[in-house]
Parts: sequence; structure tokens; C-alpha cells
Amino acid sequence: MIKNIAITGGVHGNELTGAYLVNKWQKKPIKTQNLDIEFILANPKAFKFCRRYIDYDLNRSFSKYALLEDSHLYEFERAKVLKERLKKKDFLIDLHTTTANMKMTIVLSKDDEISNYIAKRLAREFEDVRILRWFGTEEGDFINSVVPHSITLEAGPIPQGVLDSKIFFRCEEIVKRAVEVLDKEYSQLSSLSHNQSTKVSTYDIVKIVDFPREKGKISAMIHPNFIGKDYTLIKKGDPIFIDFNGKEIVYEDEPMYAAFINEAAYYEKKMAFCLCKKGYI
Amino acid sequence: MIKNIAITGGVHGNELTGAYLVNKWQKKPIKTQNLDIEFILANPKAFKFCRRYIDYDLNRSFSKYALLEDSHLYEFERAKVLKERLKKKDFLIDLHTTTANMKMTIVLSKDDEISNYIAKRLAREFEDVRILRWFGTEEGDFINSVVPHSITLEAGPIPQGVLDSKIFFRCEEIVKRAVEVLDKEYSQLSSLSHNQSTKVSTYDIVKIVDFPREKGKISAMIHPNFIGKDYTLIKKGDPIFIDFNGKEIVYEDEPMYAAFINEAAYYEKKMAFCLCKKGYI
Repeated sequence: MIKNIAITGGVHGNELTGAYLVNKWQKKPIKTQNLDIEFILANPKAFKFCRRYIDYDLNRSFSKYALLEDSHLYEFERAKVLKERLKKKDFLIDLHTTTANMKMTIVLSKDDEISNYIAKRLAREFEDVRILRWFGTEEGDFINSVVPHSITLEAGPIPQGVLDSKIFFRCEEIVKRAVEVLDKEYSQLSSLSHNQSTKVSTYDIVKIVDFPREKGKISAMIHPNFIGKDYTLIKKGDPIFIDFNGKEIVYEDEPMYAAFINEAAYYEKKMAFCLCKKGYI
Repeated sequence: MIKNIAITGGVHGNELTGAYLVNKWQKKPIKTQNLDIEFILANPKAFKFCRRYIDYDLNRSFSKYALLEDSHLYEFERAKVLKERLKKKDFLIDLHTTTANMKMTIVLSKDDEISNYIAKRLAREFEDVRILRWFGTEEGDFINSVVPHSITLEAGPIPQGVLDSKIFFRCEEIVKRAVEVLDKEYSQLSSLSHNQSTKVSTYDIVKIVDFPREKGKISAMIHPNFIGKDYTLIKKGDPIFIDFNGKEIVYEDEPMYAAFINEAAYYEKKMAFCLCKKGYI
């Protein structure tokens, strides 16, 4: 039974959309019949300074070691506070934005029936929703790792540090619909199997691709033809990078779908884009 | 006579295009016959951390008081170093990017014959070049205030913290053309009057418009219809903002041209966009 929901925005302080939505809902909550919802500005200090993070990426600060040790890192300490606030929540909706052309991506980092059900409903109802499955990174665990069920909304393209009213209202619409479905269907159902008959397709991350580098420094950019081509199939021979002198670098791997192309925050994570295979849930 | 040129990139550390261009040219300089060019990464510390600035906006750190006092601010100290390096330069080309849809904007902060001449040449030769005249802010003086002649290139739209190969190569092309004109024409001419006959139009900033705010906090966003509409005429009754509940706010002033709409770095400067009147040089 789903009863206690959390909605987090501003896990990354320069992704303003989620932070401002949470702020709006804190003043005037989304109405529900059966659910209790808590709206949380996840990283208030990073939001204040309009930075992704102060000391460490908060959305990589929920690993066991980060949650157990006393730390001089603001985000490690903040993660402990958030874990405590989230520990009785049944479902988390976590709001992000990206500079990549990801449209309204639902990131699934879990493979449970309830998270999948909500993602599927949204993908069927909103033509710009895509489902990306990403089960974690080596850098540390996501915020949703401390909650049993969750979806993450990644909206883009939008620069860091700005609001885009079209994206703001579209995110609001999608979140409100997710809440409505949870409110009307999940609070009263013990089994969902009858809703699971139709499959929807997903993009499942299988590989991370870094920028070409020389002595650690980026030596090529995303190719002009590849900019904004998230969720399109790339094939052997397609140009993916171009170096600073105009030399093209082509794709050599098997056909796959690219995502998170040229996301600003991933330059330091050594990720120019990721490669996905189609799946379904 | 124009002889010593400086090209600065990364005055703002998260505007990567200029920083990477300068890095490229430091390794392999632009060839000239008559000019000496120095390529300078202006704010290496902010670039390292991919932030606009560390302590204070470097491009507002060239006022007399900033250049005279000992300071605990990194950028105030850096400005003194840069002033020293720039003091014998005749011409500065300073490279910036913006999240606003400014295309290839040449910002003129001076009104001298040589700066105007270069801006006009570029505006005539490149269809995406616009000339914006902006003679300073109350916050502090621009880097070009310490050099007699200069143009600033503001390229957009591009998020902070990313490279866009199309914008990268377009900036390179425009800068190289500016250098070529300076090299071939300015190093040998004492008078330019014969080149000044044809006028080109400019956008001259006359007013700054902040976001609507409540208790200091932003209470509305750029209206969907107004996003990306830099250099278009706005008239009384046009919607310019929309609040978080969807209420529209319309423009009430005389017809003017908007620029720098929704630039990320200007949220903290209390500037949602600026208003310009047409001029000519």
C-alpha cells in the first residue's frame, strides 16, 4: 500500500525547475485523497549558490559508506538528514533537469512493480515521456536508493541556472498525474498484476562514453550532427565527435541509442553520452 | 596604429567556448603579418571549477576601486594581474557565451572609431552577427575598460559548462576574420574615415528589466512566447512573464527590442532581460 510520498527538487542546486516546483507546492500542496505528500528542497545550500553541489554530488551520496561515516562534506551530512526524512516514505518522485535533449525522461533505477507501473502510465499518456533505465553508478548511490519505490524526472534541454516556463509547467503536469495515479489506484490496490499486461519500451543504459581526451583534457566536442540526437539510433560510421581542428571521429560500436548527449554536469564525470539498448517493462 | 592584440577567453569560467579557443590558439596561434597576439585564459581558477567566478564577477572587477585596494577576492587580484598584462595592448577581443538566444552578438562598450569599424565589418560580413551597445553597469567595469579599443563576442544560446561544436567553430571564424581585418587594414592605416561611410544598425541598451519578485525571490518566469525572442520588438500588451500559477504579465512600456532574455548569470544581477533602442554606427 502506497501512503507516504516525497517529492524532492533541487537535489542539484542549479537545476532550478524542481526546486521552484517544490517551493510552489510547499506553499500550496498538490491535493490528494489518500496520500500524504512531503515536498523537500533537497540541497538548500547548493540551491542558494546556484551550484550543482557544494562538496560532492548529493545524488551520489547515498551509498552505505557515505551514510555511515562522519564527514566534512556538506552533501554527505545532508544525505543522512534526507535518509531520515525519507525512511518512512513509500514512493519518491525526484525532479531533475538536463542540458541534453532528453525531453521528459522518466529515469527508473529500480525494477519493482510499482515504480514500473507509474512510469508506464506516464509513458502511455504523455507523448514526450521516455523511460530510461539506469541502475546506478560507481560514484555513489542515488537519493532514491533509500526509498522502496520511485521515479526520477529528467527534463531537458534546459541550461543550468535558468527556469523555462514550458518545461516548468510540463514537469508539473507529469508529476501531478503521477500523484493522481498513485492516489486513486495504488492506495487501494494490493495487487497490480491486472494493470501490467501491456508492455512499454524502455532505453536501458549499457555503456558510458567519455569525450576523447589528451592528458586528461577534453580534446574533441560532440559532432554538430550528433548534438540533440538523444534517443536516436547511432550506427558504425556515424560521426559522434569533432576535434578542435575539425577532424571527425566516428562511432565504431554496434547500433545503439544515445542519451544524455553533452550534459554539462557529466563533463567531470567523464561521460559525453551513454549508450542504451531497447528494453521493455 | 594597431599592433598588440589580446584575445581573452574564460573571463567567466563556465563559458567554455572562449576558454577552449584560447587554449587552442595558445598551442597554435592565429597567423598574422603585422600583429602580435597574446591569448589569455582570463580566469583559470573559475575555469578549473567550471564556475562563472570564485568570489566576484571578474568582468565587473576592473573599476578603479577594485584595481587599487588589496583584496581578499580572487577576481579583484586577478584583475590587477590582467590589467598589467593588457596595459600595452591596442585592441582586445573578449570571448563570452550566453544562455540567451543572442546568436553572434558583438558587444561594444566603447564608442571609438576602431572598435566600431571592426564591429561594422563583422556585422556586414556575417548574417548572424548583431551589434549590441552596452556602456557598463553599476556593478563594476568590464575587462575591456583597461584597453583603448575592443569588441566582446557573446555567442548563444548555449548552456554554461558545455561546448557546442557549431558555436565553437563559428566563434573561431568570426574572431579570425576580426584579426585578419585588424592585421591587413589597421596596422597600415592612420585614418579610417574613408571606411566609415556606410552605417550599420545597432541595439543600444537603455533599460534593465528584473523578474517580478516577492520578498526578493523570483515570482514569475519568462513567458513561453517570449523565450528566445532576443532582438525582436516587444510592444504594449505582449506577454513577457508568467507566474508559477500560470498568470500572465504583459509589457507596459513603449516598443523596444529585448536582449539577453533569460541569461542564467543575470538572475543574481536582477536582470530578466534588457531593453534596447535601435541605433547606428
